[in-house]
Parts: sequence; structure tokens; C-alpha cells
Amino acid sequence: VDSMDKSVVRIAVDAMGGDYAPAEVVKGAVQAAQRGGVEIILVGPEDRVQAELSRYDVEGLSLLVHHTSQFIVDGESPARALRAKPEASMLVTARLVKEGQAEAAVTLGHTGAAMISALWVLGTLEGLQRPVAGGVACFLAPQTMLLDLGVNVDCKPRQLLQFAAIGVAYARSLLGIPEPTVALLSNGSEEGKGTERVKEAHQLLKRSGFKFIGNVEGWDIPAGRANVIVCDGFVGNVFLKYGEGLSRALAAWLQERLAGLLPAQELARLGQELGGLLELEEQVGGGPLLGVKGVMVVGHGRSRAPAIEKAIGQARLAVVNRLVETIEEEWRRISRS
Amino acid sequence: VDSMDKSVVRIAVDAMGGDYAPAEVVKGAVQAAQRGGVEIILVGPEDRVQAELSRYDVEGLSLLVHHTSQFIVDGESPARALRAKPEASMLVTARLVKEGQAEAAVTLGHTGAAMISALWVLGTLEGLQRPVAGGVACFLAPQTMLLDLGVNVDCKPRQLLQFAAIGVAYARSLLGIPEPTVALLSNGSEEGKGTERVKEAHQLLKRSGFKFIGNVEGWDIPAGRANVIVCDGFVGNVFLKYGEGLSRALAAWLQERLAGLLPAQELARLGQELGGLLELEEQVGGGPLLGVKGVMVVGHGRSRAPAIEKAIGQARLAVVNRLVETIEEEWRRISRS
Repeated sequence: VDSMDKSVVRIAVDAMGGDYAPAEVVKGAVQAAQRGGVEIILVGPEDRVQAELSRYDVEGLSLLVHHTSQFIVDGESPARALRAKPEASMLVTARLVKEGQAEAAVTLGHTGAAMISALWVLGTLEGLQRPVAGGVACFLAPQTMLLDLGVNVDCKPRQLLQFAAIGVAYARSLLGIPEPTVALLSNGSEEGKGTERVKEAHQLLKRSGFKFIGNVEGWDIPAGRANVIVCDGFVGNVFLKYGEGLSRALAAWLQERLAGLLPAQELARLGQELGGLLELEEQVGGGPLLGVKGVMVVGHGRSRAPAIEKAIGQARLAVVNRLVETIEEEWRRISRS
Repeated sequence: VDSMDKSVVRIAVDAMGGDYAPAEVVKGAVQAAQRGGVEIILVGPEDRVQAELSRYDVEGLSLLVHHTSQFIVDGESPARALRAKPEASMLVTARLVKEGQAEAAVTLGHTGAAMISALWVLGTLEGLQRPVAGGVACFLAPQTMLLDLGVNVDCKPRQLLQFAAIGVAYARSLLGIPEPTVALLSNGSEEGKGTERVKEAHQLLKRSGFKFIGNVEGWDIPAGRANVIVCDGFVGNVFLKYGEGLSRALAAWLQERLAGLLPAQELARLGQELGGLLELEEQVGGGPLLGVKGVMVVGHGRSRAPAIEKAIGQARLAVVNRLVETIEEEWRRISRS
């Protein structure tokens, strides 16, 4: 989708977030700038960021530095740290979006802190208390996105309907599916299956106007039975992390099982590919916080330059494909219902 | 464990349950009888069961037929069918256990119908409304059992404690672990993470006297972080079915990915082994209904003879290792707390 679009998107990048900040963040940003289609604003202490930039030939690249001396340190309590450091790089990154100086924000810092920054600075949609985590969770089914993946637990039926609205917009703008099908994750395909809340959500979804195909079960996720599958963040989180654990355990199993049958290098590649299929962050390098009034992509803390470049690409795509606006449209539609 | 024990266990087998009944059921029963350590009572229409038996040399094997002309047909509503057919093979199979004519029951019929049969005929432990489904759900971690896997949804915190008691007994008698560790599945390892009910269950488990190691996350399941992992049946079911779907999807992916690199036969075997790792029924051929006052093993409807033989082996093991008595002991212990 993005290769077709030549428009330049201005993206603020938190240079101090993630395990390898600022070195790998700056490296990833330089690579993204080289690729084109973006103007990058690196947010962090000017001297440290410039020191990293000096390692590369950045002549002619759209790379700016926005100075701030504060940043969140690993191990700090997110809310307390953000309150104590109003000029923390993560908050400033979000603020650049709020003030219109950037069209999207990218951070690899602590997910909880990113949520709070998005909430404080950008705000969420009317009636939504926290951002929603969602995305393609199993790349055996790349046209299927799942949400919530761990932020919102103990969801009321109405929230599951809201997830559907967000998911439909996500599938439309980021997966390029004009009329996404929607399903509800349950412990049986029949309408009467599920927890009390799931059963109520089923009724709401039936009347929603979405292309609701009913309940789906665990095996329907890798099979890609629907484009949008909604579930409580508790279930989504268990599911997502099971995939990650399985990817590691199966890679180890394949290493041992196929030792001698395939060259070691081939086996290592196979393990990596498995990670790409089952681990969200490995594949996309991050995802946008959903339901937030602005684009803010949060990548995994252990990201290195290639994943950071991908996260920046994700942010660009979200802007070009009008993710936030599309979510707002669907949101208004269900709010009237 | 069972190879050490020479005692003979009398097992009633519902000859009319499962997609390939009675042919494959009888075949699996004959194989189990040949293996030894069991006396089999095949429950079903005498003529049909005898016709199947006549295909094998059963001379000297402990195989009896208990006649009943009624049985449940595929597609019938379980409760209605069982009410209309008081002599249905599934009910009679359970009744033989209740009356002491057999020590364990095995059926491959509809799981819902098996639950109801167990409930009506054998009954559940004091305070337990429905049987509990549990077992080793991911064979990358063969010393880890998960429950509930789909029967009990919307569980109260007290139920999760009950699952722990059942799980500890299961791990002790069927997995041979004297002091099993117990964990609570959640969306974060910290004590404060989870739904309201999970947080309350955490407090109950802390005071339970079990070797409770706290919350575990999705990736801790294949890693085998605890011997007993408890969760609501809604979550367990999604998880279990995701593993099954993933196994199929990954087998297909490996087939394609390794085509030309490995012989076709080797690839087919790899796919099967993957099924053995991720699909509950493939590996054990069935599991006992837990919390029932008697051993009743329910196998998958699509089981063929080898899986049926395994289900019979499971039933034998549950009797020899005093599964029901061990569950009752743990049950009494938490009931006093």
C-alpha cells in the first residue's frame, strides 16, 4: 500500500525509548529517512542524539532534532516518572503530534508509559477510557486482526462492540479490506456459547451493522475465519503471549528435531521465520495505540534498528491511510446506535 | 507408571460412541485387551458388537459384551436424547461404574452427553456443579496441566481454587509429581494483574496451602513454569483450540516451507509430531472428567483404534493411581479452609 503513496509524513520519534536507545533508535530513524516518505523529528538530549547522528551520512535526509533533557529511565513507575518529568522525551513526542508539528509519534519506551502519555496528551475517543491494543496477532492469517490484546480487561459488552468498530477501521485502513468481517471469540461457535458478557456482546454485534459472522473459536484465529476478531484484553493477552512462547519453544524443538537433516543456518532461519509468524512485534515492529486521537505507534523495548524502521513505517502508513479518521467515523456510527 | 503395575482393571467401554463406532471402538478395545492389565466390557447392541469382535482372534482375552439396544445418534440434543433413552450405551457404561461392575468408563461419544451422563449417574463432588475439563494441553511442557479447558465459564474465584485442588491431585496421580506447583493464568505476572475474579482467586490461592507460585502468562504454558495452571474454562478453551488450529496451520506451513529440503514422508511425520505436541486428543486419546465421583474418560469423537486404546489406558491409569480418591482428599482439604 505505502509504496504507491509518495506523500511525505512528518514523524516524531522518541529517541530515548527502548533498551538500545538512543543508538539503535537513531540508526533506525536514519534508515527510515533513507527509505523516504518521512520527515523525522528525533526527540531527546541534543548532544546525545547528534553524537549518534554523526555516525551516519545524513546529508540531504529529512532528520531534525527536537531537544529535551528529560526522559524515562528503565524501572521507573510510569505514571510517577511522567508526572515528575513533564519534558520527558515520550511526552514531548506525543505533544508534537498534539500541536500539529508532527503527524505521528513513535516510541519504543515502556508500553504503560506510552499509554499514559497518549491518554494525557492526545486523549481517547469519547467514552473510551483507555487506548486499545490490537493488530495482526498470528501471521499465518495476515488478514485477521485481534483486539484487545491486553490493555482492557473485564470488558463490558459495549466495549467489545467498540473494539469491533476500531477493528473494522483498522482492517479497512491498514489491511486494505473494504468490508471486513467481524467475529466474536468464544468457547463455541453457537450463539449461546460464552460468558454472560460475551453472550450480550453477541446480541450487540448482531445489530451493529458490521459484517458480523458470529462466534469463532481458538482454531479460527490461525485459519483467518474473520478479518476482525474481538475479545477481552485478558484473553487476547494470554493468547498473544502463548503465541510468543510457542514460537520460541517450537523453534527449539525444530532445531533439535531437524538437527542433521538440515544445515544449521537453515534451521536458524526457520526459527526466525516462526517468530515472524507468531510474534506480533517481530513482524510489524510495533503497532498504533487504537482509540487515541492521534497516531502513536509503540514498539517493543528490545527493538533494534530494523524493527524501529518498521515502526516508523507503520506510523507513516497509519497517517497516509487515515487510520484515526476512519476509527472516528466507525465510532460515531456505533455511538448513534 | 502403569508398566510397573500388574493389577487388572475392569473397564466399561461405550461401544456406540464416536464417529467410527462400533468398528474402531471394538478394534481399540481388542488391542487394549491384548496389551493386558484390563478387562473390557463392551456396552452396545450384542449383535453389532459381536459382529465386530468376530473379525479378531479374541480367544483368551478379557472381553465381555454388555447388551443394550439404545444409543445416542450424532446430531441429537444430548440432554433430550439421554432422557428419551434411559438405556443408552453411554448411560449404561457410566452405570456399570456406579454399580461397581466396572472400575472405569470410557466413551468417545458427544462430550456434552458424556458430561450429563457422568453428572446424572456418578455425580460430582460436593459443591461442584459440573465436571471439570483438564489435562496436559501443550506437550512441549508435559509436566504442566491446565484446567478448566472449556466446561466451566464465568468462574467465581472459589471455583478457580477448586480447579487448583483437582489439578494438584491430577498432577500427583497421573503425572507422578509429589508436590506440584500451582499458578494462576493472568495477563501479567504481578499480583495486581488480571480480571477482578482473577485477583480475588490470587488471594485465595495464596492462602491455600498449595505450592502457589503466583500469576503466570501465556508464554509460561509452553515453558512449563508450573505443574498446574488454573484458568476460567472460557480462556482454557480458546487456548486449547488455538493450539489445535496452530498445529494444523504450522504443519501446512512446514510442508510448504521445507518442500524439496526434506523427503515428503519426513515432512508428513513432522506434521504429525506437531499435532502430538499441540493437540490434546492426539496425544493422550482422551482425558478423565474431573471432579466426578468415578473414573469416566472421554475421548475425541474422531478417535480411531489407537486413540481408543490410549483412552482405555488412561482410564486404567486413573484407577491404578487413585485419581478420584486423591481429588477427594484435596477437595476436603480446601473445603475446610
